[in-house]
Amino acid sequence: VKDMIKSFKEIIERAREIGPKNLAVAVAQDSDVLNAVNNAYRMGIVNGILVGNEREIRSIAEENDIDLSNFEILDVEDKVEACNEAAKLVRDGKAEMLMKGFVDTSIILKAVLNKEHKLTGEGILSHVGVLKVEGFDKLFVMSDAAMNIAPTLEEKVFIVRNAVKVARALGIDNPKVAILSCVEKVNPKIQSTVDAAKLVEMNKNGEITGCIIGGPFALDNAVSIEAAKHKGINDPVAGNADVLITPNLESGNMLNKSMEYFARAEKAGIIMGAKAPIVLTSRASSEESKLNSIALAVLSAC
Amino acid sequence: VKDMIKSFKEIIERAREIGPKNLAVAVAQDSDVLNAVNNAYRMGIVNGILVGNEREIRSIAEENDIDLSNFEILDVEDKVEACNEAAKLVRDGKAEMLMKGFVDTSIILKAVLNKEHKLTGEGILSHVGVLKVEGFDKLFVMSDAAMNIAPTLEEKVFIVRNAVKVARALGIDNPKVAILSCVEKVNPKIQSTVDAAKLVEMNKNGEITGCIIGGPFALDNAVSIEAAKHKGINDPVAGNADVLITPNLESGNMLNKSMEYFARAEKAGIIMGAKAPIVLTSRASSEESKLNSIALAVLSAC
Repeated sequence: VKDMIKSFKEIIERAREIGPKNLAVAVAQDSDVLNAVNNAYRMGIVNGILVGNEREIRSIAEENDIDLSNFEILDVEDKVEACNEAAKLVRDGKAEMLMKGFVDTSIILKAVLNKEHKLTGEGILSHVGVLKVEGFDKLFVMSDAAMNIAPTLEEKVFIVRNAVKVARALGIDNPKVAILSCVEKVNPKIQSTVDAAKLVEMNKNGEITGCIIGGPFALDNAVSIEAAKHKGINDPVAGNADVLITPNLESGNMLNKSMEYFARAEKAGIIMGAKAPIVLTSRASSEESKLNSIALAVLSAC
Repeated sequence: VKDMIKSFKEIIERAREIGPKNLAVAVAQDSDVLNAVNNAYRMGIVNGILVGNEREIRSIAEENDIDLSNFEILDVEDKVEACNEAAKLVRDGKAEMLMKGFVDTSIILKAVLNKEHKLTGEGILSHVGVLKVEGFDKLFVMSDAAMNIAPTLEEKVFIVRNAVKVARALGIDNPKVAILSCVEKVNPKIQSTVDAAKLVEMNKNGEITGCIIGGPFALDNAVSIEAAKHKGINDPVAGNADVLITPNLESGNMLNKSMEYFARAEKAGIIMGAKAPIVLTSRASSEESKLNSIALAVLSAC
């Protein structure tokens, strides 16, 4: 039994214990991304395989004092081809994680979803965030804040499974999954409450395993034992959620950004659902957040 | 020109300056509500007209050391009738605000929406929250976290107008209104982005006045100048929003609860859109939050 990880410091420590793992960087000619990969390399978390325009990679490395002798480089000028080559490294077992460099998200996802690369099965890709909010003695896993606009019930099943994989990678053996909505009673006018009840049923039927699902919940009933008590909710997940599943992209994105910008949560995020976790950090994320995301990918690649 | 109000302390001060105003309490036999109204009376914010079962009101008052000689009491035993009587007090100009007591929300809202009581016109009712998040030198006005499940564009126009009224009551002369979604580009697959663009247009056309509307925005682009800059968004509302309009009840409720439970925001909330603001505090809200909501109603009743 692994210990439950409760902070980003512990995520980094665990990644160092089980790392380094091989990270393929698609279109690596990006100073932010190269610096993040170099940091992760120096912490013993990853070995990087840099796929991209070698000349530009070398020039950026020089400007940033990055010693490229520590990395493997595959010189591929075309961005689409570079993404395909990075995907093939995962397919062939040469890399266990993928990271987006200086390329549009849609292009790297196309390479991941290309059937020839055999990186995806029957599931779907979804974004899984991990956030540390002050005052809570745990990490929250949340999904989906960045990929699926209006997931169907079938898609929500995969969203739950992808999030549960990350929660289990954080050492939470039987994570408590809250299916969020705006109320705690099923209301046929609010589809997310109906879907929540069905997901709870599928969990009880053994169709979704490795977790305890509860819902529908408004956010307070999921994360505050006091609020759940006030509403008279008697459920093992109520007030104790490890995993927060949002009904749609608008609410997921809003919750994630609210935790980051209003509650000043430390955060990481990866795309799950393919053979390898995908790190898609944005230019706006801090160096710390990029390193957190790479470390989270290392744990989730297990 | 009124000064812009930036804290709940200032809301209370302003309410004391312009108060006391007359508050009709529907089904007043509720200890939490009677205590809140008594607090507001003692601060000079309201005069209370207690509509409900007089015997029970007197018994609760005695248990809670509330001096009922300070209040007018209308003895109405039936809860539906008590709501109707309270609504008529507003219709007849005898009360400027309404507060829910020991009665289901649906029953008091029915009394408010009853055409005979003439409390509503062409608009709709919507919940308007006011929240103070640490680190931001302003109050955020947000809507709708509690009333409208999936508002149409027409309904969003009224939601914006109701929220703008509250923002202006807080002394924000030309409030910056952010129409939130999950992205900052219009995407036909995400109706909230399409609606946002239309609301911006209606503002430019003069169909929605007294505010500057921007959007669609993801939350970060609305409240963080740095995040807006990173995305290259050049808009007066970006990063500077006073008013946050959410696309649907799920995202509105989640944002509001996240601000309260994760960012530990101080908060108030009222229902706008009728002739008088309606205070609907829940049993779970703190005494402070109930007083804040009554004070907010006093300002918004102007």
